[in-house]
Amino acid sequence: VVKSEVEPLAWRDGALHLLDQRRLPHEVVWLACASAGDVAAAIRDMVVRGAPAIGVAAAYGLALAARGGELSTLSEAAATLRAARPTAVNLAWAVDRMMAVAAPLAGAPARTVADALEREAVAIHQEDLEANRRIGAWGAALLTGGSTVLTHCNAGALATSGFGTALGVIRAAVAAGKSIRVLADETRPYLQGARLTAWELQQDGIDVTLITDNMSGYFFSRGEIDAVVVGADRIAANGDTANKIGTYTVAVLAQRHGVPFYVAAPWSTVDFATPDGGAIPIEERSREEVVEATGIDGEGVMRTISIAPAGIAARHPAFDVTPAELITAIITDRGVAEPPFESSLRRLGG
Amino acid sequence: VVKSEVEPLAWRDGALHLLDQRRLPHEVVWLACASAGDVAAAIRDMVVRGAPAIGVAAAYGLALAARGGELSTLSEAAATLRAARPTAVNLAWAVDRMMAVAAPLAGAPARTVADALEREAVAIHQEDLEANRRIGAWGAALLTGGSTVLTHCNAGALATSGFGTALGVIRAAVAAGKSIRVLADETRPYLQGARLTAWELQQDGIDVTLITDNMSGYFFSRGEIDAVVVGADRIAANGDTANKIGTYTVAVLAQRHGVPFYVAAPWSTVDFATPDGGAIPIEERSREEVVEATGIDGEGVMRTISIAPAGIAARHPAFDVTPAELITAIITDRGVAEPPFESSLRRLGG
Repeated sequence: VVKSEVEPLAWRDGALHLLDQRRLPHEVVWLACASAGDVAAAIRDMVVRGAPAIGVAAAYGLALAARGGELSTLSEAAATLRAARPTAVNLAWAVDRMMAVAAPLAGAPARTVADALEREAVAIHQEDLEANRRIGAWGAALLTGGSTVLTHCNAGALATSGFGTALGVIRAAVAAGKSIRVLADETRPYLQGARLTAWELQQDGIDVTLITDNMSGYFFSRGEIDAVVVGADRIAANGDTANKIGTYTVAVLAQRHGVPFYVAAPWSTVDFATPDGGAIPIEERSREEVVEATGIDGEGVMRTISIAPAGIAARHPAFDVTPAELITAIITDRGVAEPPFESSLRRLGG
Repeated sequence: VVKSEVEPLAWRDGALHLLDQRRLPHEVVWLACASAGDVAAAIRDMVVRGAPAIGVAAAYGLALAARGGELSTLSEAAATLRAARPTAVNLAWAVDRMMAVAAPLAGAPARTVADALEREAVAIHQEDLEANRRIGAWGAALLTGGSTVLTHCNAGALATSGFGTALGVIRAAVAAGKSIRVLADETRPYLQGARLTAWELQQDGIDVTLITDNMSGYFFSRGEIDAVVVGADRIAANGDTANKIGTYTVAVLAQRHGVPFYVAAPWSTVDFATPDGGAIPIEERSREEVVEATGIDGEGVMRTISIAPAGIAARHPAFDVTPAELITAIITDRGVAEPPFESSLRRLGG
């Protein structure tokens, strides 16, 4: 079985252990979360990020809350976790699925509820890993050997249970013997491309070259990009897709240059309750993340520096919406949906 | 007369003083250049940058070289300065203009040559400032009060003799009583937007909001950008325009959203010897600039940090080409050229 060297979370000794992604690639540090509050804070602060991974983390958060033994505690934990980040639907999906297991157990012994929720969280975790592998298998068939694939942000092992969606497609293609070269957008302000995608592909020995977000247009215009594969935080019923800020721009460039633009995501990312992209809430994060950058100095000490004048105004929408018309195909664990997505997604959902 | 508080260079006491733009906005430090070699190094290392400003700096570099008194010294200095950066044609233009003054003086006393070249450099400097003001006057008429203008990189006072091309247009519109809000792309990797544009507009009290380069698509898609104004490093005879990496992407987005895309540049940026964008040399700078960022830490100490895993491959094209078809108008000191540029630029040149 193809796997990545990298896993962002582990359930061990009754605690959720999270690889602190704020400190990668400079330091490999694990944080233990012993409560749902710990997990919600870790999601909010981006210790763990990536739509599938925060769904799995939230599930474990509820398994931890269930130990409290009271359904009211569990409901509060569910609300806190759900509110940690608004855009990725996988978070709400995982919370809903966990609460659907808890509901019929109202009045049961605390231990019974806790055991059931732990089993469900482990199942969500395991299913996400399997979904990633199926996404990889479907998607690998779409990539041609010898091609250069652009990706944005990190939809990799670190964003999931350990294989990746967009990077899972690339991993599976490489495992199938195809020669793939990856161009990774650095993905400001949080630098998930420079810190996470570059690192995890380097760990796995996959050919990766880092560029700044404003360079992809240059490489498109020179015919040096053959395909784009990105992840998703929420896919509306019509195929409109929310993903990390900057994804929309990449899709516009891909269309102009006739380059296929693929979205890879587990089925839990598809939200039929959201008719189109206009209904997807876009998280606005703090201006500090825009006026700062984090890395290591010459002595290997991690530092956050300010890159702009003091007091400057800044905006920080953390996601944008790529309209369905710019998407060539959506690669899910249930198969590949092609336009028109309204019907192809319904069929896969069938 | 409208002016900016900011000037990037000054000729004083027989030396060229350069505001060290690598250290802005964190530290205001001036460097004195006493030789053409000093000036060439300052251009290469981006102490001074911006197509018009490096043209003016190179002119003073030759004025310094002329003191050596020998035409061969002058020719060597010209070659060194011309090679300092390849993309901006203003550099070659200023060197050519200085050498055209020197050529008929072959055999004249050293002092005569030196005086003539100093006068010519001062003239180039002064004319650039005047050209900026005329660009501002032409361009301000194109901006509507109450609009939000996106700009990329720094085509401001710091990139010129002290008023700016793209930012000169904005300054002139504001001076004419129009309410203009500026969105400034941070412009990785060198962060000219975050460090220089944000700073100089803040100094002048112009409303500016900083965004990362991958965010403009979001604001375009929400109808929150009314116009784009950028500078240029070289404008080919057909209107194709080389400018800071990322400009092409902004132009593609502007076209998709029906937003006017203006290029503002002094006439010396127009290069009839370059038929189209394919003939413009694109400088590829070092990977270090991509894997690093510079700013100040919490104690106000300037630091360069690494933001990516050690040993990662990176690419760094420093410019890209925006095809003429994406440009609404080119604003020069001789007037505004509209498509088709092949003929409109010729007419202005006539």
